[in-house]
Amino acid sequence: MLEKLKESVLQANLELVRLGLVLFTWGNASAIDRENGLVVIKPSGVAYINLKAEDMVVVDLEGHVMERGMQPSSDLPTHLELYQSFRQIGGVVHTHSQYATSFAQAGRGIPAYGTTHADYFFGEIPCSRAMTAEEIASSYERNTGRVIAELFQHSDAQAVPGCVVRNHGVFAWGLTVDQAGYHAAVLEYCAKMAFLTEQLSPGVRPADACLLEKHFRRKHGVHAYYGQKEKQ
Amino acid sequence: MLEKLKESVLQANLELVRLGLVLFTWGNASAIDRENGLVVIKPSGVAYINLKAEDMVVVDLEGHVMERGMQPSSDLPTHLELYQSFRQIGGVVHTHSQYATSFAQAGRGIPAYGTTHADYFFGEIPCSRAMTAEEIASSYERNTGRVIAELFQHSDAQAVPGCVVRNHGVFAWGLTVDQAGYHAAVLEYCAKMAFLTEQLSPGVRPADACLLEKHFRRKHGVHAYYGQKEKQ
Amino acid sequence: MLEKLKESVLQANLELVRLGLVLFTWGNASAIDRENGLVVIKPSGVAYINLKAEDMVVVDLEGHVMERGMQPSSDLPTHLELYQSFRQIGGVVHTHSQYATSFAQAGRGIPAYGTTHADYFFGEIPCSRAMTAEEIASSYERNTGRVIAELFQHSDAQAVPGCVVRNHGVFAWGLTVDQAGYHAAVLEYCAKMAFLTEQLSPGVRPADACLLEKHFRRKHGVHAYYGQKEKQ
Amino acid sequence: MLEKLKESVLQANLELVRLGLVLFTWGNASAIDRENGLVVIKPSGVAYINLKAEDMVVVDLEGHVMERGMQPSSDLPTHLELYQSFRQIGGVVHTHSQYATSFAQAGRGIPAYGTTHADYFFGEIPCSRAMTAEEIASSYERNTGRVIAELFQHSDAQAVPGCVVRNHGVFAWGLTVDQAGYHAAVLEYCAKMAFLTEQLSPGVRPADACLLEKHFRRKHGVHAYYGQKEKQ
Repeated sequence: MLEKLKESVLQANLELVRLGLVLFTWGNASAIDRENGLVVIKPSGVAYINLKAEDMVVVDLEGHVMERGMQPSSDLPTHLELYQSFRQIGGVVHTHSQYATSFAQAGRGIPAYGTTHADYFFGEIPCSRAMTAEEIASSYERNTGRVIAELFQHSDAQAVPGCVVRNHGVFAWGLTVDQAGYHAAVLEYCAKMAFLTEQLSPGVRPADACLLEKHFRRKHGVHAYYGQKEKQ
Repeated sequence: MLEKLKESVLQANLELVRLGLVLFTWGNASAIDRENGLVVIKPSGVAYINLKAEDMVVVDLEGHVMERGMQPSSDLPTHLELYQSFRQIGGVVHTHSQYATSFAQAGRGIPAYGTTHADYFFGEIPCSRAMTAEEIASSYERNTGRVIAELFQHSDAQAVPGCVVRNHGVFAWGLTVDQAGYHAAVLEYCAKMAFLTEQLSPGVRPADACLLEKHFRRKHGVHAYYGQKEKQ
Repeated sequence: MLEKLKESVLQANLELVRLGLVLFTWGNASAIDRENGLVVIKPSGVAYINLKAEDMVVVDLEGHVMERGMQPSSDLPTHLELYQSFRQIGGVVHTHSQYATSFAQAGRGIPAYGTTHADYFFGEIPCSRAMTAEEIASSYERNTGRVIAELFQHSDAQAVPGCVVRNHGVFAWGLTVDQAGYHAAVLEYCAKMAFLTEQLSPGVRPADACLLEKHFRRKHGVHAYYGQKEKQ
Repeated sequence: MLEKLKESVLQANLELVRLGLVLFTWGNASAIDRENGLVVIKPSGVAYINLKAEDMVVVDLEGHVMERGMQPSSDLPTHLELYQSFRQIGGVVHTHSQYATSFAQAGRGIPAYGTTHADYFFGEIPCSRAMTAEEIASSYERNTGRVIAELFQHSDAQAVPGCVVRNHGVFAWGLTVDQAGYHAAVLEYCAKMAFLTEQLSPGVRPADACLLEKHFRRKHGVHAYYGQKEKQ
């Protein structure tokens, strides 16, 4: 079932490796079929070199596995929580990419220091709060999704399609799983530049709001003028 | 039309990827045919892997597209402004390469700490001033070219063939689009070393003027003695 | 003799190169056949490109070479000491990987700043004490193994399967030589992120103990739930 | 003439590219035939991809070109000075590798923080003094060799087979041109780790002298015990 979506999820997972965002079996990507309420996700702990489209695991929104086969990624409940909280997204990606994860380990969001950031993320990429001992002890992966959702209670998760989870790593999302992976790569690229910017100029401030907004609007919304007309 | 120049522009764009200066569809390169007043530039937002020479877009100096086909890069007006301000250049390249862009995000030029820098750039690689809200709101890309041109009002844009645009990224130029790309690569290489130099020795000063001039003159001008006689 | 183990040791050595953990002939990997009390290790100072399985050297636990052939790695006595001190390990790897070795040169262990670390190492990755002039002058490589073993006198070397040796480099181990190499790669990855984390936030503290324990237990011990059931 | 040496010099130059030590046409390698007093060096400013063994330039110790063909590297007089000052070396390499050149730009030698360094360099890798305006104005490249030679007036250039030239880059040497390139790579590797070590622990001190000496002697001199007996 969902052969085409499985292929997309496989390719998105492999792209994470090609982009240098994951090592070994780390990281995972998933996509949702909103119509049928089904999610396709990478199996847990399988080497990328051996991954095939048919190994992708189909689950429902409660996480029940729909076909005989492999165990889904242990981060599945986080993905499910995000699909339920962010109703317009179609794909989710998780990585431990090095610069972004270092921001997570420092307990810090990634400030918007320039237009590369603003082209895809409208404002700071936030860092989730520390989880409580109770949240860690029980339903840890589900609660990881919840602290992410908390960050976007009063803002639009599509305008900032990713975050860092404190002391953990990156979650990014998008309309498709491809786009989610793309956002994870931009997030890492901007994290590296934010790191360098701060080292070059301690105390540096985010870029002017009007510059950031200009760049975001060049690529998003009704007045966008980047790219070819027939493509986004 | 301009098939040969399109091929050069295509190759210069692909070289930016090979040199690690751009990710995804970011960055763009253009060349000018001064005789006919026509500019060839990368189309907007197309994946490099799919780019063909015939996809390159031909425009006049007002930016009018001369053939049916794709939309030009959204940064076209910046390129046009540079061709008009710097009359001897033949190619322009734009990247968000990571070390140089971090200097841009820190609002800083790249100091001339050594001979690698001086072999191609005669003095500091400058950073443009912050743009005003008005400059951002209207004709933003054209104004980006103007703040770059401002940097060279009283100096020679050929002696310092590139700059960083505040909170944005890199523009570099040269006699040809190949040379513009070459300069963009040197600029990133020197930006990384300037970063490391400052971390190693906070408060470090630029290299002695006579050493910097010696190296620039080894490669440029009537007394140059680098390279083979028949080649530059 | 031990053809299969020789092949595993060869592959583990080559994997160190592919993972970017060693330059030239640096680094070495070994495996032990506990039943026969024999160790297989890389020969000393041979270029990786020329290595063949039959070049791997078989020695007993006193270091006597069991077959005619090449000299074993000069670090052999350190490997032997580790096999004697840590009775459950099956493989040992040594590298001078850059971030981890820099912690060693700074005389510092690698703090547990996040879950990437905790997924494989339960607590700080320790740095051995400085060796005395006597320990260096005589049986230096054997004594290197001893200062490593000292670090785990009161703790479990399987819960922290690696360390840095002061002013020297990395030793990592595992149930197999493959796993030892895997741990060496994780150790370097975490060392880089620990470096970045500290630069981003001087004075940063290790992650909460309950988060670290949660992640270690997801992958290790009777309550592990990461990976496929039939595989570890 | 000297076909075999030309091939070695070609391969050493190409190896600099493969090791990531040079960009574009930067860097150069040479070898000397001591018996005939002839030096073989890379031609000036030729792209590596086009280099052939027959393009290598043969000169005598005064720098006279011995065959019709290309112009030698503009750094030739520095190489010649080193061959005359260091009578036992057989090859010289010059790079602008990024970490080592950053030490040069900071005006600093590379301290011996660990055994990776000590395996090849016995003590700090020194940085040459600033050159005077006169030294720069006339016979600049020859004088570059002289300030390098000054560093080793009272010490053994074979025990520390490389240095950084202030505000410029790296020169390294060895018994052969292959070994010179090898040393240039080790020098860059150690420069990166020295950088990281200092960032991790400001004020860190070099490693203990007895540890450094132990490692150098493992690989060099009559008591060396690293590698296979028939090979160095």
